[in-house]
Amino acid sequence: MSNIGFKKNKKLDCSFAEFKNADLKLVSGLILKDFKLAFKTFGSLNQNKTNAILICHALTGDQYVSGQNPITDRDGWWSRMVGPDKPIDTNKFFVICSNVLGGCAGSTGPKENKDYDKNQDEIYGRDFPSITIKDMVNAQAKLIDALGIDQLFSVVGGSMGAMQALQWSIDFPNKIQTIIHIAGALKHSAQNIAFHEVGRQAIMNDPNWHKGNYLEKKSIPERGLSVARMIAHITYLSEDAMHRKFGRKLQSRDIISFGFDADFQIESYLRYQGRSFVERFDANSYLYLTRAMDYFDHSETYRKTLEFINNENNHIKYLVISFTSDWLFPTRENKEIVKILNNLSKNVSFLEIETDKGHDSFLLDEPDLDFAMKGFLESNFGKEDE
Amino acid sequence: MSNIGFKKNKKLDCSFAEFKNADLKLVSGLILKDFKLAFKTFGSLNQNKTNAILICHALTGDQYVSGQNPITDRDGWWSRMVGPDKPIDTNKFFVICSNVLGGCAGSTGPKENKDYDKNQDEIYGRDFPSITIKDMVNAQAKLIDALGIDQLFSVVGGSMGAMQALQWSIDFPNKIQTIIHIAGALKHSAQNIAFHEVGRQAIMNDPNWHKGNYLEKKSIPERGLSVARMIAHITYLSEDAMHRKFGRKLQSRDIISFGFDADFQIESYLRYQGRSFVERFDANSYLYLTRAMDYFDHSETYRKTLEFINNENNHIKYLVISFTSDWLFPTRENKEIVKILNNLSKNVSFLEIETDKGHDSFLLDEPDLDFAMKGFLESNFGKEDE
Repeated sequence: MSNIGFKKNKKLDCSFAEFKNADLKLVSGLILKDFKLAFKTFGSLNQNKTNAILICHALTGDQYVSGQNPITDRDGWWSRMVGPDKPIDTNKFFVICSNVLGGCAGSTGPKENKDYDKNQDEIYGRDFPSITIKDMVNAQAKLIDALGIDQLFSVVGGSMGAMQALQWSIDFPNKIQTIIHIAGALKHSAQNIAFHEVGRQAIMNDPNWHKGNYLEKKSIPERGLSVARMIAHITYLSEDAMHRKFGRKLQSRDIISFGFDADFQIESYLRYQGRSFVERFDANSYLYLTRAMDYFDHSETYRKTLEFINNENNHIKYLVISFTSDWLFPTRENKEIVKILNNLSKNVSFLEIETDKGHDSFLLDEPDLDFAMKGFLESNFGKEDE
Repeated sequence: MSNIGFKKNKKLDCSFAEFKNADLKLVSGLILKDFKLAFKTFGSLNQNKTNAILICHALTGDQYVSGQNPITDRDGWWSRMVGPDKPIDTNKFFVICSNVLGGCAGSTGPKENKDYDKNQDEIYGRDFPSITIKDMVNAQAKLIDALGIDQLFSVVGGSMGAMQALQWSIDFPNKIQTIIHIAGALKHSAQNIAFHEVGRQAIMNDPNWHKGNYLEKKSIPERGLSVARMIAHITYLSEDAMHRKFGRKLQSRDIISFGFDADFQIESYLRYQGRSFVERFDANSYLYLTRAMDYFDHSETYRKTLEFINNENNHIKYLVISFTSDWLFPTRENKEIVKILNNLSKNVSFLEIETDKGHDSFLLDEPDLDFAMKGFLESNFGKEDE
């Protein structure tokens, strides 16, 4: 029989939900018997349990959506968006954010012990099963159940988080009132798969990867992971933003070095992004999570998706947001979702935000995004629920 | 005193021009005392020596512009463009193509012996001096002189070849009648520097690179070079072409593998591109040539460039060509050059070709490109010269 326990971890400043005999059936067919999810909550659940918002994080995000992140000692990744009096107002809403299955901030994933009670000391590594966005969402749904929440007021996410939000609306339409889907797509594109594949090759080509068993060998494929991050980072920015921010500005010299040092500021910046990423992220997790994104494809399972979205239990109000300069998840890909929802006469709002900040816009200072999200959440949140 | 010799190499099916005591002064300030250039010619030089066309190759190109390439056993990289009755018609024109300085198909570069007579056996490796596009052009100019050609009918190039063509028009305006500049720019952009930098990091992070001394150590940084090529290859295609060609098609399975094999065709394709590149290209050359492209910047030395272009000896007729789906050297960057030339009342034609094939369009089957080039060359080639 399945058994669910909650623990607090002071050092990691988060909670853990432990699912024993949960028999989480993965899309691959494999079954994850036991698993745990690291999560954080902000604000308070109201008496009717109607004010819960689940925030789904992006590829390299974690449960530290707001406040201090104890792993990096920096502000949470969406601190500007989530908190008291912020667009997602924790005076009003109860915000939940869990580290995805396969992640590396405490939830069950390749860097964790196979047995989370640690009666035996054996790390998953490459033995961790392949996961999909649907699996992440199934695990989250078990957490929401365990927290005693029948219906979420909203599921909110950008990028890989948007994929999860869309998946929630397909798999659990009766468990959600609203969705905010930011900079996502119906499917991962060939070009996006290509960039992920190069990143994975960089990691797996690093001799320190040791076929995925680097933790046992007490090594880290930091060079490969760093290159993977550098590639990805280019795709998160727009060319215009890169030009505006760095252009061809030199780093710390008036003249070029005629060598392979970081002459240009853009080079130092990328090298820094690579180095600092290695300190906070697990290489195998990067492989599994990029793969989960690659496998995401509701255009292939289109009919099935339509049926689910068209489910009579689906009364979800959707807000879909894209950014003009996002070339990873461009407006046209976000609009495909809007088109389907419109064709099915579902309740959907769409907003394209004019910005040169690229895919990363959803994490950055974009007042239009704040206004749109705050307005959507508050206008849909019933007065009687407050 | 400088001393120039010509040799033929049967195995490599090309000629070598050897410059002894040439004292090639590099932009960095260093002097290359001796150097050699590997080159090929096609067609015959006419009596008045007025029908010579210099073709400048791109980053990973070589002197094998047409015919069989003995290194790869494949067709030359522009065989469809150069040959008898082809757009650059070798029945009419005398075509010269030399491997650039710093290259790896025979010209002096990091993989060659410091002493090309091989009286001593010491490979350049990282001791090879940093070079720029201007240095490549200076070396080519010495070759053209040595061939007894006072004026080239045309200098033609795409991508890094376009940079060289533009540099020719700035440094040697009185030595050229026409220029065909395809998919280039006035400067290398921040985003392009970023992609190059990640490729270089992938190479230099490969333990087999051995700080550049891999040939001495009898190793090859093939994993790093392969990743560098994969990254670059993504940038050579357009998203539309990738979508059209590969989409999310699976490689050889009906279902996904739930692993890190190449499930998608785009993954196999990129892996193949990486693997096959390693067989034909030198990792250090890749570092030096990408760096030369990064350093290319006539927007920085704008005034000086204008003076040169405005030189009274500059009667060059320019043809500038861009491709709608090229995001590496987009139309707007090519147009910057056209704008300057127009402002200086120079003779310039501009053509943007509608295609979804991306930056690589100049190497692919693009009938509009063929027509434009053939038309431009033949209309400018005087009847009296034939």
